[in-house]
Amino acid sequence: MLRPWKMLLAERIDPNSATPLYMQIIHALIHEIQRGRLLPGTFLPSSRELAAAFGVNRKTIVLAYEDLIAQGWLASSGTRGTIVATSLPDTGARAQKRLKLASTATAAAEYPFKEAAGLPDRSWDLKLDEGSPDGRLFPTDLLARAYRTAVQRAGRENRLLYGDPRGSVLLREAIATMLRTQRGVMANADNVCITRGSQMGVYLAARVLLRPGDAVIVESLTYQAAVAVLEDCGAKILPVGLDKQGVNVDDVERMCRAHRVRAIFLTPHHQFPTTVALQPDRRLRLLNLARQFAFAVIEDDYDHEFHFESQPLLPMAAYAPERVLYVGSLSKLLLPALRIGYIVAPPKVVDSLAQQVMLLDSMGNTLTEDAAADLIETGEVRRHVRKVTQIYAQRRKAFAATLTEQMTAVAGFDIPHGGLAFWLRFSDLKALDRIESRAPGAGVWIAPSRSFMTRPDAPRGLRLGFASLTEEEAREGIRRLAAS
Amino acid sequence: MLRPWKMLLAERIDPNSATPLYMQIIHALIHEIQRGRLLPGTFLPSSRELAAAFGVNRKTIVLAYEDLIAQGWLASSGTRGTIVATSLPDTGARAQKRLKLASTATAAAEYPFKEAAGLPDRSWDLKLDEGSPDGRLFPTDLLARAYRTAVQRAGRENRLLYGDPRGSVLLREAIATMLRTQRGVMANADNVCITRGSQMGVYLAARVLLRPGDAVIVESLTYQAAVAVLEDCGAKILPVGLDKQGVNVDDVERMCRAHRVRAIFLTPHHQFPTTVALQPDRRLRLLNLARQFAFAVIEDDYDHEFHFESQPLLPMAAYAPERVLYVGSLSKLLLPALRIGYIVAPPKVVDSLAQQVMLLDSMGNTLTEDAAADLIETGEVRRHVRKVTQIYAQRRKAFAATLTEQMTAVAGFDIPHGGLAFWLRFSDLKALDRIESRAPGAGVWIAPSRSFMTRPDAPRGLRLGFASLTEEEAREGIRRLAAS
Repeated sequence: MLRPWKMLLAERIDPNSATPLYMQIIHALIHEIQRGRLLPGTFLPSSRELAAAFGVNRKTIVLAYEDLIAQGWLASSGTRGTIVATSLPDTGARAQKRLKLASTATAAAEYPFKEAAGLPDRSWDLKLDEGSPDGRLFPTDLLARAYRTAVQRAGRENRLLYGDPRGSVLLREAIATMLRTQRGVMANADNVCITRGSQMGVYLAARVLLRPGDAVIVESLTYQAAVAVLEDCGAKILPVGLDKQGVNVDDVERMCRAHRVRAIFLTPHHQFPTTVALQPDRRLRLLNLARQFAFAVIEDDYDHEFHFESQPLLPMAAYAPERVLYVGSLSKLLLPALRIGYIVAPPKVVDSLAQQVMLLDSMGNTLTEDAAADLIETGEVRRHVRKVTQIYAQRRKAFAATLTEQMTAVAGFDIPHGGLAFWLRFSDLKALDRIESRAPGAGVWIAPSRSFMTRPDAPRGLRLGFASLTEEEAREGIRRLAAS
Repeated sequence: MLRPWKMLLAERIDPNSATPLYMQIIHALIHEIQRGRLLPGTFLPSSRELAAAFGVNRKTIVLAYEDLIAQGWLASSGTRGTIVATSLPDTGARAQKRLKLASTATAAAEYPFKEAAGLPDRSWDLKLDEGSPDGRLFPTDLLARAYRTAVQRAGRENRLLYGDPRGSVLLREAIATMLRTQRGVMANADNVCITRGSQMGVYLAARVLLRPGDAVIVESLTYQAAVAVLEDCGAKILPVGLDKQGVNVDDVERMCRAHRVRAIFLTPHHQFPTTVALQPDRRLRLLNLARQFAFAVIEDDYDHEFHFESQPLLPMAAYAPERVLYVGSLSKLLLPALRIGYIVAPPKVVDSLAQQVMLLDSMGNTLTEDAAADLIETGEVRRHVRKVTQIYAQRRKAFAATLTEQMTAVAGFDIPHGGLAFWLRFSDLKALDRIESRAPGAGVWIAPSRSFMTRPDAPRGLRLGFASLTEEEAREGIRRLAAS
């Protein structure tokens, strides 16, 4: 005969569940003990009896009992059978209200935590992103082969455990060589700390530079995710103006005179979001100010590679490595999903960055880092960039034509010399509001125009990437935005 | 005739360097402009003249001039030739002292930053780690194949750009299923946030729970890298005692009465570093305290898998998901170098964790996550664990025998029921000091005994991993430690 608590127990056993019966029984018994329905000292039915009640093999029950004894929930009472352990704390009526066996899936946290907004909505079918590459263009065979080489090599060399927090030395060397030969940055492996994308680069840079209350200069239009990092470090954000030559250096100087500025965050190469290049005279004046006021330049060179008109400008890190933390990424060269970025800095700063890495995530993904090093060293990355630059140049042209056709009435734009996005300026902000409110309903994702603004008087606009979509997809996206 | 500055310029050109001549010339010219030796308005020699002086092809010089014009350093003066741009700021004698073209390799940062200790020494040849698996036992072919499958699938589905900050849904589902069926944790994919190893799990958990000044309980012996994270969040660390049953719950209660405790960090399964399991009665009392004082339990289940005596205890998250942030990792199941961990929590907490991920590194490595999901789902992980558990059981036995042979005079130990390390107790701390001071000279790495201590009265000891080395290697390591 099955007593009531055993009936309740039986309710918790589902022979069709993916969870093994063995585990369900353990769970159900602990549940009943916790709820106080099975009190310390209570005799359990024999394994034979319970097996019959549940319609399971007796061995399953024996195994569950043995485990619960080993775990301390049950105890063997010699030949008299199995009892609920007497060392358990009171789990009577009052405890019953306190402890329940809940499903994580539906549990509400019963401790205070920093609540966040929900996750970004993903219900679009066309993403006019902020300038991603087209992941479909990367030859997957090549990547699979690079991983195979990396797995074999790292296996052979026993490098699959814990390693250098600065990252794989193969990749640090490959990146240093790439920077020396292609960007004039005189770095070697000891100047490179590998990161999980440029987001982590900015995060680490901010963490070694800033203390709560420190002042940091950013442009009035800039990268929101970087500002979020700076604010997270407790920085006081000082927005300055910018124009077609880049950041307003007079504004920077004024800020330096009024505040103890510790850093400036810049995207000098292709300003985010406006795509303009910071001109050399302003770069030099900025570095003079950096020296005068002892602040650091966080140079985020997030998409150095794609330049359509001329060779790209040298990074500021090329001529002032002692004042610049240079943040780069392979997300555009290879693929964002590989999460490989880097920071270049003097060796002592790299040591501090590595200390932060040890705190955050110990180290990077050795195989991905080695695979990326392999792709750089074998010239595959260069070949890939040559190939896609032609495709992107064509898409840029087509994108400009579609913008002219669909958007001229409301938005102005310049064809960007480099980078993978257009910046659309609006004289009539109501037109912009209409586009943004229409986008979700049209199944199109665009970055919110307000996300770029650090000052209410900044010129609100749209940043539209042209590289990740085919010409047809992009046309469709713009058409939907423009349609009234 | 070559004027003096051109001679200086020539000094900077090295035809044997890996840096292309073209880049060297650009660099050298910017250098001379910055140092003020080439003043705004100065005429440059003709490309023909300079090519002759440097012994390079004229086209190289033409290309470099064109680029520097595009970059704004030089300007074309019509038919009269090329001049240094007049829009550049003063780069005369005074500026000369300010700006120099330095090599990053040797530069010292000219901005304040948080200096860190140097990187850990790596000059050992035998590492008696804190309990790593043996990376050499993982079949590299399997891993390469899993990566190939992942690359092809993600390529096909266009998932190589930016994705869910919580991680690949394939892996979140695989982990939820594994936890439900093998650990009794009733989670689904929405309860799982993928991290880069359990270190990042602890980091994220601490960041969503703590504000500066919050009190956090840890054991008097615990995992230093976790305490470092808690301290980094500004936590006030409250160490409590522990014994062979695990953490001292009376101590915990006393702390809760004296402070506003926000969290407790625990490794209940195999206590780090002492390897003991937290007994069920204490688990229940702890959860009652958690309810009473509204604190969260950070349960770091860093090596759940390897248990040699009985089935492992169910995690605390299995019976109190509303009070526990459950941190796990695939580092021991698969490989540390893959950097895959996870946190299980109620969905709203997972959203907050995801918000932190967006700040830190945007998202995880999609391919590695998919590859891990594939290895779990195809049963390869289970097969691998079965295989290595036998090997580790053998190594554990041999390790115990060697310890008995070499160390009994100075150290006591119990054979651990689970996990991949032994805990050595010392009654004579001078003997421990001798071992620790001898280790570096003997080429053996061991974790510093003081790194585990959060209280000066904690019993200082050594944690020695037995799994990552062969029996012979481990014997050699212990022999070197014991040798006087």
